[in-house]
Amino acid sequence: MKIIIVGATGTMGTYLAKALEKEHEVIKVASKGADIDADITSTESIEKMFRQVGSFDALISTAGPTFVGPWAKLNDTTFRQGVEGKMMGQINLVLIGQKYINSKGSFTLITGALTHEPQVNFANASAANGAVEGFVRAAAIELENGIRINAVSPTVIENSPQYFPYFPGEIPTTMKELEFMFRKSVFGKVTGQVIKP
Amino acid sequence: MKIIIVGATGTMGTYLAKALEKEHEVIKVASKGADIDADITSTESIEKMFRQVGSFDALISTAGPTFVGPWAKLNDTTFRQGVEGKMMGQINLVLIGQKYINSKGSFTLITGALTHEPQVNFANASAANGAVEGFVRAAAIELENGIRINAVSPTVIENSPQYFPYFPGEIPTTMKELEFMFRKSVFGKVTGQVIKP
Ligand SMILES: NC(=O)c1ccc[n+]([C@@H]2O[C@H](COP(=O)([O-])OP(=O)(O)OC[C@H]3O[C@@H](n4cnc5c(N)ncnc54)[C@H](OP(=O)(O)O)[C@@H]3O)[C@@H](O)[C@H]2O)c1
Ligand SMILES: NC(=O)c1ccc[n+]([C@@H]2O[C@H](COP(=O)([O-])OP(=O)(O)OC[C@H]3O[C@@H](n4cnc5c(N)ncnc54)[C@H](OP(=O)(O)O)[C@@H]3O)[C@@H](O)[C@H]2O)c1
Repeated sequence: MKIIIVGATGTMGTYLAKALEKEHEVIKVASKGADIDADITSTESIEKMFRQVGSFDALISTAGPTFVGPWAKLNDTTFRQGVEGKMMGQINLVLIGQKYINSKGSFTLITGALTHEPQVNFANASAANGAVEGFVRAAAIELENGIRINAVSPTVIENSPQYFPYFPGEIPTTMKELEFMFRKSVFGKVTGQVIKP
Repeated sequence: MKIIIVGATGTMGTYLAKALEKEHEVIKVASKGADIDADITSTESIEKMFRQVGSFDALISTAGPTFVGPWAKLNDTTFRQGVEGKMMGQINLVLIGQKYINSKGSFTLITGALTHEPQVNFANASAANGAVEGFVRAAAIELENGIRINAVSPTVIENSPQYFPYFPGEIPTTMKELEFMFRKSVFGKVTGQVIKP
């Protein structure tokens, strides 16, 4: 399979690329320093990335910038980080990518437990996640040619211990579990699902 | 109680205003033709509306424009209708309104069954709903002074028969049920909930 990983230089993306490139052709995308550099907050940049890649079988996104910080700093401006990044960035990867993906291909987007398990400082991510999950369920009944779409929704991940203090009581998702959640979406047949650990 | 209804000239808003103004001071807000005209897609307009109202006890929003139409017409531009309207419009009512609301006051936003029960043509609303519901759960653990926040999530409503063909198999929410869902949020004590029929 030809698999695009958007966010391939990050904590999740690095692990997933390493795991998948043993058996598949993996094209790594990030803001900078990847096989292809692209900015998901720009539709022009997304379009250009897909033109460079050509047709593909699966897109995995682990790129989802949001505003993290105190509630007092949350306003229309700071909220846009998650709106343009994790929400519209990922939604536009699908709305544009559907023109380039092979039939029976799949899109797998990243959300997270914050959709339903809020934590202080992360309201922007809760909203962006909720939007992406609502979109995934709706897109699954609209996409044609057998194209599937799912979201992967881990808790705080094993390789991000710096976040543990902000997620009291949350059992971390291991990297192996994370990989298997993505495998379920890419290599399985489900669509419109939010895959949890 | 002093209750603001944003969207008061619409199908839901008209019914709710009539039901609540028997016992409460209701301030009706809409784009045009209400007690106060305001555009929820503009933070300046929202701020001006709150300054005119002064302090208040509850805000109900039934204003949530989204793009409704074929999947082929869904792109970054059309998607913005729901992002700016139902999503950021309602989120900004809370982020700005928290400075004006009385302690122990409440915000009640509108979402809908589309969050989890997608229908063809309505992906933009599914995403906006999901964002608002994620935000509501997160805001509930951040808001201070006993201020509460909930979302009301009806199925297609009794007084909107023009939508019935687009919601096959969905049992309509009666107007009385809709009113009681808002009453649970405004006069009850729950917070961070998505109230369903
Ligand atoms: N880490 C966790 O514990 C955890 C748990 C649950 C959910 N999540 C969610 O999972 C996602 C990824 O987490 P992570 O820890 O792997 O993040 P990360 O280490 O910060 O990696 C993010 C990746 O996305 C890329 N990226 C960021 N903004 C981009 C843009 N505008 N255009 C293109 N690429 C962009 C980054 O590339 P550049 O550095 O070049 O920008 C990087 O490759 C986030 O949305 C996060 O909310 C994380
Ligand atoms: N109707 C249903 O069956 C149903 C079921 C579930 C969920 N919902 C959701 O419930 C919400 C309300 O539904 P409805 O049928 O009552 O809608 P509606 O009849 O179209 O009424 C919408 C109200 O919101 C106001 N409004 C729209 N855009 C605004 C803006 N930018 N600034 C300020 N006010 C604005 C409208 O005022 P103006 O006319 O002056 O713009 C009107 O008062 C929608 O979000 C819808 O998605 C509806």
